[in-house]
Amino acid sequence: VFQEIEAARERLHGVAHRTPVMRSSALNRRLSAEVFFKCENFQRIGAFKFRGGWNVISQIKGDDRIAGVVAYSSGNHAQAVALSAKLRRIPATIVMPNNAPKAKLAAVEEYGAKVIRYDPTTEVREDVAQAIQAETGATLVPPFDHPGIVAGQGTSACELHEEVPDLGLVMVPCGGGGLLSGTAVATKSVAPKCRIIGIEPERADDAVRSFRSGVIQTCDNPDTIADGTRTKSMSDLTFGFMQEYVDDMQTVTEQAICDAVGFFFQRMKLVVEPSGALGLAALLSGAVKAEGRIGLIVSGGNVDGETFHTILDRAQV
Amino acid sequence: VFQEIEAARERLHGVAHRTPVMRSSALNRRLSAEVFFKCENFQRIGAFKFRGGWNVISQIKGDDRIAGVVAYSSGNHAQAVALSAKLRRIPATIVMPNNAPKAKLAAVEEYGAKVIRYDPTTEVREDVAQAIQAETGATLVPPFDHPGIVAGQGTSACELHEEVPDLGLVMVPCGGGGLLSGTAVATKSVAPKCRIIGIEPERADDAVRSFRSGVIQTCDNPDTIADGTRTKSMSDLTFGFMQEYVDDMQTVTEQAICDAVGFFFQRMKLVVEPSGALGLAALLSGAVKAEGRIGLIVSGGNVDGETFHTILDRAQV
Repeated sequence: VFQEIEAARERLHGVAHRTPVMRSSALNRRLSAEVFFKCENFQRIGAFKFRGGWNVISQIKGDDRIAGVVAYSSGNHAQAVALSAKLRRIPATIVMPNNAPKAKLAAVEEYGAKVIRYDPTTEVREDVAQAIQAETGATLVPPFDHPGIVAGQGTSACELHEEVPDLGLVMVPCGGGGLLSGTAVATKSVAPKCRIIGIEPERADDAVRSFRSGVIQTCDNPDTIADGTRTKSMSDLTFGFMQEYVDDMQTVTEQAICDAVGFFFQRMKLVVEPSGALGLAALLSGAVKAEGRIGLIVSGGNVDGETFHTILDRAQV
Repeated sequence: VFQEIEAARERLHGVAHRTPVMRSSALNRRLSAEVFFKCENFQRIGAFKFRGGWNVISQIKGDDRIAGVVAYSSGNHAQAVALSAKLRRIPATIVMPNNAPKAKLAAVEEYGAKVIRYDPTTEVREDVAQAIQAETGATLVPPFDHPGIVAGQGTSACELHEEVPDLGLVMVPCGGGGLLSGTAVATKSVAPKCRIIGIEPERADDAVRSFRSGVIQTCDNPDTIADGTRTKSMSDLTFGFMQEYVDDMQTVTEQAICDAVGFFFQRMKLVVEPSGALGLAALLSGAVKAEGRIGLIVSGGNVDGETFHTILDRAQV
């Protein structure tokens, strides 16, 4: 699989941003450790999702280009697919719930994608997407259950290890497990001694329970502020990667997530969405012991002003 | 004076951060120009002010170290002096109004400085600081009216020109004119063809009026959200630099400032304080025509959550 990550790097070169790695001396002093933040909030579309989306969509050839792509997502994956398709002049259809935030609808439409709304109380988004696929012949680009998506997401960790050698631990937020899988594969290939810990909100702990029980567990519409981790469950693909390559899984509280977003705002002047702050939340709250050289994948920065205010209001920095 | 900036660079080396230069492809497309953001919001204490403060305080020798330093400021300069003094183990006294925000008082005290509060309705802060100076023999570190402060602030522009050659225009926010003076001197030395434009809020336009009239003008407690520019007036020193080295001065509205802060938040995932957004405000509003390669000094990122929310609420991005 690591070869696929290396191939993804080639495809992403010059298209995706090589995101910066940032540090905070105040944090390092507080934790007596060295923390390196891989800032995917500075990636195109404001999140790592562009890596996987572009890796898959850049490989679409011939008539499949004309048929276009279809995806279901109300979040960053929607924008990743919409932008990738736009860059390749491929038509894109995004299936979004009719209660999705206006800002997210607008962002996707700004990239020129067609939005199909569905009623989440009566329809299943996968069914809606499959119906479109059957009708148009479009290529379905799933948010995480695809080797090309996993490979694309793994490119961020490659850049991190290249820039920061000798990391002892890398922490990754976990929703459906695409970023976790790619990061774990990349890390075990280029820095085999480095441990990998996946972090989930306590309220959306399906992957943690899956990890401990050895069987895929689910969470239905979990009530967490970290919207990027509200996925119902991992897939067989990402669960398999987790079992093989991930060293541990831990949870953090909603308060810890808010505190971490507040720290990014106040001390580091970074806008980080709640899902992107899970690793820092684990360190600040003590859910994971800080020690040595630690890499954190800051997965994204897409958060609206109102939500950001609510979080900062709760944060204790 | 450029020699003093080069000497300041030596003193700052390894102490101040070499801040990153960032870009936004979305902005460049919108403006049909190339904009480079020198991110002093990532500087120590969250603003460029550390450069000037450290440059002056690092030169204090012998018994003067024991006597300590004194400064008056309710903003970033206070933190810059407090941190610089702490790093040299010099006692620092900061004169702050008794209505200063708690967060700012706390930040200064966290750096170990002694805070002396005064009543801004009955006392003049310069008098309070001078009384302390007379009593203790402490060195007064003024916020901008000092060649060492100007030289320190000019180091940011040196780094910018080194990293981004052939800039045609550099824009700088203007409060008391320390950053504007240092940037203008540095720019005319290393990139003589590059134009310099200083930007002020329309509501705090003393420097613009000074520039046009050739005589120092004042603004009393201007009602602008850009708190870093509320300085009453320039000094003879900074006014002189402006007259000699600055090509033009322009103003921006409060709305344009909010829009620019909102753009930084939503599109660039950067926390920028209103004063730091003046250059982008000028470009987005058309107050300054965007053309070619433009450098903007993003002066700082110290803004509290409530103010940030108020700004985002008003912003149209």
